[in-house]
Amino acid sequence: MKKNGISKSVVKRLPRYYRYLGELLNAGVERISSGELSKRMNVTASQIRQDLNNFGGFGQQGYGYNVRYLREEIGKILGLTETHNMIIIGAGRIGRALANYPFDKYGFHTIGIFDRDPELKDMEVKDLHVMMNEELPSFINSHHIDIAILAIPKESATEMAPFLCENGIKAFMNFSATDLNGILPKDVIVEHVHLSESLMKLSYNLNLKKTDDDDVS
Amino acid sequence: MKKNGISKSVVKRLPRYYRYLGELLNAGVERISSGELSKRMNVTASQIRQDLNNFGGFGQQGYGYNVRYLREEIGKILGLTETHNMIIIGAGRIGRALANYPFDKYGFHTIGIFDRDPELKDMEVKDLHVMMNEELPSFINSHHIDIAILAIPKESATEMAPFLCENGIKAFMNFSATDLNGILPKDVIVEHVHLSESLMKLSYNLNLKKTDDDDVS
Repeated sequence: MKKNGISKSVVKRLPRYYRYLGELLNAGVERISSGELSKRMNVTASQIRQDLNNFGGFGQQGYGYNVRYLREEIGKILGLTETHNMIIIGAGRIGRALANYPFDKYGFHTIGIFDRDPELKDMEVKDLHVMMNEELPSFINSHHIDIAILAIPKESATEMAPFLCENGIKAFMNFSATDLNGILPKDVIVEHVHLSESLMKLSYNLNLKKTDDDDVS
Repeated sequence: MKKNGISKSVVKRLPRYYRYLGELLNAGVERISSGELSKRMNVTASQIRQDLNNFGGFGQQGYGYNVRYLREEIGKILGLTETHNMIIIGAGRIGRALANYPFDKYGFHTIGIFDRDPELKDMEVKDLHVMMNEELPSFINSHHIDIAILAIPKESATEMAPFLCENGIKAFMNFSATDLNGILPKDVIVEHVHLSESLMKLSYNLNLKKTDDDDVS
């Protein structure tokens, strides 16, 4: 299959293309050259042409890309033409913030939020009520769930993730500070959001810059 | 400088090494071979040796790595031996969740949270009280701030980020759905956390898997 031939780095850039093209559409732009898109996205024009050629190339020489068409095609590749149901595991601050995050506009709907703490039971979060972890198997069984968001500490995540897989979950967005290595079936997809590690990268670059500045002075 | 020679992909892996080594220390492990570390981290042993050789190589053939020493050295490279002060821009759900996130354990201290909404003024968030955006210049001027976390919508972010730079901020952790391209001075460091894009990557992989499964059946 052609799709399988897309490299990870291209896939990583597709959501950005999708976002930029959406902004262009909102601004009433219907056609754009790879050169203009390149300036906006801070990617070289040849990179853009190469990336988009992966999907058969949507542009015409000297005429540019049809913004709406290109966005729709990238949306199809990203699977955004279908809606996705999600559950959130953990009704702490991060879980509740994510329940209120506007993922809906890309078709990602949170239809359940769960916690183990009886004190949080039935607590209102957006248009949902917190359910208890014990209710997970029957909930997963009676709803089509695509993605589980793990908004729990790593100790709980290493217990909950395999449990959720046994109950049929195939994809995770993981906010806990563990990679879940070796404890999940091979076909399960995990996207990690390690917030502390993002700060460490910032810190590395700050440190690097400081050393450079010292060298100069 | 040697440090400048470290590739981006290695830097990206360093926080993971740091995290794993911390877990090993907590578990009482003082020495580990690249082979064992490789199994835990799901990275090849030769990759690990290569990565760590970037920093002079902390291991001894047939003897393994000294976990504490290696973690300390990586911590130094990541700039984690110093503490970092942060401010959070936006006291909505994401901003408040981040204020309560345990970044402190890596030396990242949130010392101020700001919003433009007068109704949020003085609201208690962890051990802080929400300040108004107007107070930012004097606050930044009287405190040493290393990092500003942008927990605001993109329209506000494109206004606030340049304003914060003018007032001396040099690094951002950016949760807003914009790359801030072309509007910040070149020496400013930005680490993006685009949550919707993480979901799109998941969606792409789910879609890909479904197509594969269909092919098989």
